[in-house]
Amino acid sequence: MPHAFELKRPKLKLIMNLDALYSELTLKTNAKLALVVLDGLGDLATKEQNYLTPLEAAHTPNLDALAKDSAQGRMIPVAPGITPGSGPGHLGLFGYDPREFQVGRGVIEALGLGVELKPGDVCARANFATLDAKGIVTDRRAGRIPTETCEELCALLAAKIKKIGDTQIIIKAGKEHRFVVVFRGKGLEGPLTDADPNREGYAIPTVKPRDAKNAKQKKMAGLIALFYKAALPILAKERPANGFLMRGIAHQPSIPLFEDRYRLKPVALAVYPMYKGLSQLVGMTKIEGPQTIAEQFERYLTEYDRFDFFFIHYKYTDKAGEDGNFAAKKKAIEDFDAALPILLKKRPDVLAITGDHSTPVAAKGHSWHPQPVLLHSALSGSDKLDRFTETGANTGSLGVFEAKYLLRLMQANAKQFDKFGA
Amino acid sequence: MPHAFELKRPKLKLIMNLDALYSELTLKTNAKLALVVLDGLGDLATKEQNYLTPLEAAHTPNLDALAKDSAQGRMIPVAPGITPGSGPGHLGLFGYDPREFQVGRGVIEALGLGVELKPGDVCARANFATLDAKGIVTDRRAGRIPTETCEELCALLAAKIKKIGDTQIIIKAGKEHRFVVVFRGKGLEGPLTDADPNREGYAIPTVKPRDAKNAKQKKMAGLIALFYKAALPILAKERPANGFLMRGIAHQPSIPLFEDRYRLKPVALAVYPMYKGLSQLVGMTKIEGPQTIAEQFERYLTEYDRFDFFFIHYKYTDKAGEDGNFAAKKKAIEDFDAALPILLKKRPDVLAITGDHSTPVAAKGHSWHPQPVLLHSALSGSDKLDRFTETGANTGSLGVFEAKYLLRLMQANAKQFDKFGA
Repeated sequence: MPHAFELKRPKLKLIMNLDALYSELTLKTNAKLALVVLDGLGDLATKEQNYLTPLEAAHTPNLDALAKDSAQGRMIPVAPGITPGSGPGHLGLFGYDPREFQVGRGVIEALGLGVELKPGDVCARANFATLDAKGIVTDRRAGRIPTETCEELCALLAAKIKKIGDTQIIIKAGKEHRFVVVFRGKGLEGPLTDADPNREGYAIPTVKPRDAKNAKQKKMAGLIALFYKAALPILAKERPANGFLMRGIAHQPSIPLFEDRYRLKPVALAVYPMYKGLSQLVGMTKIEGPQTIAEQFERYLTEYDRFDFFFIHYKYTDKAGEDGNFAAKKKAIEDFDAALPILLKKRPDVLAITGDHSTPVAAKGHSWHPQPVLLHSALSGSDKLDRFTETGANTGSLGVFEAKYLLRLMQANAKQFDKFGA
Repeated sequence: MPHAFELKRPKLKLIMNLDALYSELTLKTNAKLALVVLDGLGDLATKEQNYLTPLEAAHTPNLDALAKDSAQGRMIPVAPGITPGSGPGHLGLFGYDPREFQVGRGVIEALGLGVELKPGDVCARANFATLDAKGIVTDRRAGRIPTETCEELCALLAAKIKKIGDTQIIIKAGKEHRFVVVFRGKGLEGPLTDADPNREGYAIPTVKPRDAKNAKQKKMAGLIALFYKAALPILAKERPANGFLMRGIAHQPSIPLFEDRYRLKPVALAVYPMYKGLSQLVGMTKIEGPQTIAEQFERYLTEYDRFDFFFIHYKYTDKAGEDGNFAAKKKAIEDFDAALPILLKKRPDVLAITGDHSTPVAAKGHSWHPQPVLLHSALSGSDKLDRFTETGANTGSLGVFEAKYLLRLMQANAKQFDKFGA
């Protein structure tokens, strides 16, 4: 048999980019679509919990009623075995391939602290640290100073360093020793190497462009050096936080706007800054105000006519999973279920309920396990399942699929795709 | 609709290579991983066998007990409908895309005969054949001479042809008319065209480089010609095996080492040369000695501290499938199950039990049907299945996925991936 090695000669094929195909087929309709995300929803059945997941153990009459007339499946957040952070998790849900559209750590951190980013902003995660007389890092976290101290030091820096040249400097305190620095100016770009030796006993390295030929990265590296030159003297007499490290220096990536991509006018109803920020990355309108899921659903009702696509984010399932607290996760799901009838007062044409990833109680953190998804529309069909659960979703008509396709399925259920071919 | 002609414009997308992403996220831990392969495990439920597969008909108390706390799914060996040989089947299980890393037939044949290959070796499958006075092939298999005759002729050739120039020649007899020739020298490469007319009535064609511009292939083609020049006179007076044909002439491909790729120290516990050979292609340590699955598991126990990754291969399920022998396949599974408790004396942190492909009794050969897989770890969760079966696996949380991802799921279950993005 002749073969094998012949395959190694590049045989190029031009296949139409799938996103381009979706775009070409996209139709504008009057449908209302709602994507409801219970953060970290997916979980594992384990012997310790009597082989029930929190979703299975919870009393969820409203989800149960919905399940009867819905399709179910499970979604791989990024790729098999890969555990996503909130950034890739949500970009996938918004229909963007998380491997194609990567968001730097600095940007995610800034979003999480509620900084309103603009296109082109370069963000860095920063830590207060302790330096010795020779500039050697002796404590990368400055003894985990209290949040109040961090806030004072950030205010001090912010008061004294407002600009470097034409570039505006925005400094925002986080928890304990953490803060972010945003550089807003022209012709700036990341990513850069870290200003962090990653262990004690070494000096802070000078940052460099990741791409030596990129002039914007070079300019940005120069700004970081100037920022250190300006900031270190201000902190010189502080103890233990007389220095700082900077990591994940990256610019806000260029992501096609949600409205252009899907011809849907989107709004985000989220409580936590991180999720407001992630939705703003793709151009969703941000709504301030609602603090509980009931309030978020109420607001959905009042905003119903103004938007086509509603992203509604519920945080507490993830929090309970991170804490390894089964009862709290179950309770968070039950609280959610109790509020669900408010949303259903104006039932969206297409409703998807899912997580951005799993946060199993047994893992006490994000995981790679496919999250369950429920899809309800006049054309979703019924998988004849009495409940919405991980185990039921395994047998659902949606199968196991990459999360980035959920939005495409929602569009399809909203009859927003023309037929492909005759 | 805008379309058709626009589709022809290539819309290129730059997406990070998934293997590169996995590599970036890979962490070193102390976990022990075991991949247990029942060759050709997957089968079909048919009316003739009362709608039970051999795995379903078998009495498997130990697998059953494991199933309760495991995840299940089904794996596509290469792509839908493609039946793999042992090479692609195992490369997929080892986490290498079988379409990206192809191993020539000559190499597989040499591995199957237990030849210890070195990087750069070029291997050819060979057949003894009958030639007439004009050199025309009159029987491509020389009347399927007995294995003993083949061994004698190979010994004769090996004694007289040890080297051609600087290139070492290794000749190894197989069954009946089959043998392999290995060329070990510098600057050699395959693949070449076959020295085989593929039917009787034609002369043996001269081999040529598959790539006319490849100097190493050219050199190799010259060596094949010289080998014929030296070997044919030695066989001239033999009957019926006075000639031979050579096919699948290829070099050992360059495959990234398992240990570099996964940061796991791997060992192979296989009985048959083919599987030892395939594991050596990716740099696994080969262990000689164990002859039964019980002995293989015992050896796993004694080698437990020396390695991180254990590939344990069991051949008899495939043999029975090839023979179309339902009872034998069921029995092979029961024998395996009876030995399983030995392995579980030191339960690996992550245990995968599967096949390299299906070998359905009804097909009497390898097939494309997805093989069932069981994955057990502290984070596998439970799919609440009482047994490990094809039909149960269809409803498992792992879904249907490409076999090359199994190793990635094993790494994830061993907590060997960092989070992707923040």
